Amino acid sequence: MTALTPADAEYAERIRDSFARQSIMATLGARITEVQPGRVTIELPYRADLAQQHGFVHAGVLATVADSACGYAAFSLMPAEAAVLSIEFKINLLSPARGERFVAEGHVVRAGRTITVCQAEVVAVEGERREPVAAMTATMMTVLGRPGLRG
Amino acid sequence: MTALTPADAEYAERIRDSFARQSIMATLGARITEVQPGRVTIELPYRADLAQQHGFVHAGVLATVADSACGYAAFSLMPAEAAVLSIEFKINLLSPARGERFVAEGHVVRAGRTITVCQAEVVAVEGERREPVAAMTATMMTVLGRPGLRG
Amino acid sequence: MTALTPADAEYAERIRDSFARQSIMATLGARITEVQPGRVTIELPYRADLAQQHGFVHAGVLATVADSACGYAAFSLMPAEAAVLSIEFKINLLSPARGERFVAEGHVVRAGRTITVCQAEVVAVEGERREPVAAMTATMMTVLGRPGLRG
Amino acid sequence: MTALTPADAEYAERIRDSFARQSIMATLGARITEVQPGRVTIELPYRADLAQQHGFVHAGVLATVADSACGYAAFSLMPAEAAVLSIEFKINLLSPARGERFVAEGHVVRAGRTITVCQAEVVAVEGERREPVAAMTATMMTVLGRPGLRG
Repeated sequence: MTALTPADAEYAERIRDSFARQSIMATLGARITEVQPGRVTIELPYRADLAQQHGFVHAGVLATVADSACGYAAFSLMPAEAAVLSIEFKINLLSPARGERFVAEGHVVRAGRTITVCQAEVVAVEGERREPVAAMTATMMTVLGRPGLRG
Repeated sequence: MTALTPADAEYAERIRDSFARQSIMATLGARITEVQPGRVTIELPYRADLAQQHGFVHAGVLATVADSACGYAAFSLMPAEAAVLSIEFKINLLSPARGERFVAEGHVVRAGRTITVCQAEVVAVEGERREPVAAMTATMMTVLGRPGLRG
Repeated sequence: MTALTPADAEYAERIRDSFARQSIMATLGARITEVQPGRVTIELPYRADLAQQHGFVHAGVLATVADSACGYAAFSLMPAEAAVLSIEFKINLLSPARGERFVAEGHVVRAGRTITVCQAEVVAVEGERREPVAAMTATMMTVLGRPGLRG
Repeated sequence: MTALTPADAEYAERIRDSFARQSIMATLGARITEVQPGRVTIELPYRADLAQQHGFVHAGVLATVADSACGYAAFSLMPAEAAVLSIEFKINLLSPARGERFVAEGHVVRAGRTITVCQAEVVAVEGERREPVAAMTATMMTVLGRPGLRG
């Protein structure tokens, strides 16, 4: 339905550059592991200092990587000179977030001129076991012509 | 409408104990600054390593402190033996998150036996200026009788 | 924070004209009862043919009037030539929707050039009793320059 | 991940009985067209009296059928004596809702003892053309032991 055609051939490089400037990603230990048109994956290894009170990864940390996965999935289809901003997101926590690492995959549901709707799933991985722990829907905005705002 | 009467007189101590075990809060540099029945405030000083690509605090970081503020606002009205879990939350980003510090105030909208609905506002503070940067609605669950799950 | 100044002096008339064209409002029996800059109220009398399976008003019906209250609250601050569209909304159901009538009050939380964030509360009224039954957050879009799309 | 095994063999009959008691469905002209474990489809033919101000079907009407599709998808996996209630839902409007009819398909993402998370897609159909017009995530609650509340 939504054409997943990048408007800019350098989309993957733009995404990796922008991700490198998201300092929170290094703070949390998250890495971007896959970049395709309309689909981006971010991985987060478990760390004890990312937890809520029961030792599971905090819902907000899952939301942080899922939001970035959604944002870059949207960004992959935007013009070269655009910036991407999150308007809003909603996340459901499906199971306690325990595991060795967490994989957040965001994809574009509908790309419009100004508004792009994305969804992300976060899966906990422990050995062979993969369990969905969160589902997000996010609304992203294409921002053009705002000086100083790129990426 | 919702009676904001703590079911347990030690609610403030339980919240502060639980907050101290949320290791992500120390990682982000967040402090709990106010605890009342049905209302909890968490503050987060700006740090460059919490940013998204434009230097604003990442939406997921705002969501993390707002979710905890909502969770503890709900927890303040729960029985002593209960645990609180986030079922879901939704956050709207109102303005770029720039400022010296960010104040997330969560309050209970409706407290039921199993489900508590909360809202939070996150305000950016810069000198005298206070600007709302995010608004959250969160659904919290009272968990009872699950061994090993408290706080 | 958000200046609640109408961009167009005829905002109330524009809203009432647009509401009159929302045929679903007559189908449900809803009336617009208050129009102010950034704040609109819609009332819905109870009818047995608006119910879900337990006889309460269906959550989607509450969402319909709350979405219109939010949309017109946003619209009250838009230029005369604009159209308003809902990008998304989220609603929490707080109590079973029983009562003689339901009052949905929407107000603007943040009005931007393209995006306006609103919240609505729906209250059930039964004699002297007033009980909140739903809380919505909605994201509205100002649409300009699309031929045939006004109001 | 989530076992889509009905707890009650009569699930389809319980759903159709409950749907028949949702009087709003007849008011809108909606029919339930498919019932499977964890998946329910509701169809809504276009009617001019379901519209918003531009003649598209009102977002709240799409939300009404999507919420019921989600609720019955969840209900299909619940014990025979349970009732289902919507805790909250969030819907993104992807395209203007024009078409001959609208098909809302809800499915279970995660079924827990108390909380079931569902998603729905609403597609507009016009001849051969099928276009997604809305995406919902909904949180449903299994209610047991509340006298008078079934279905």
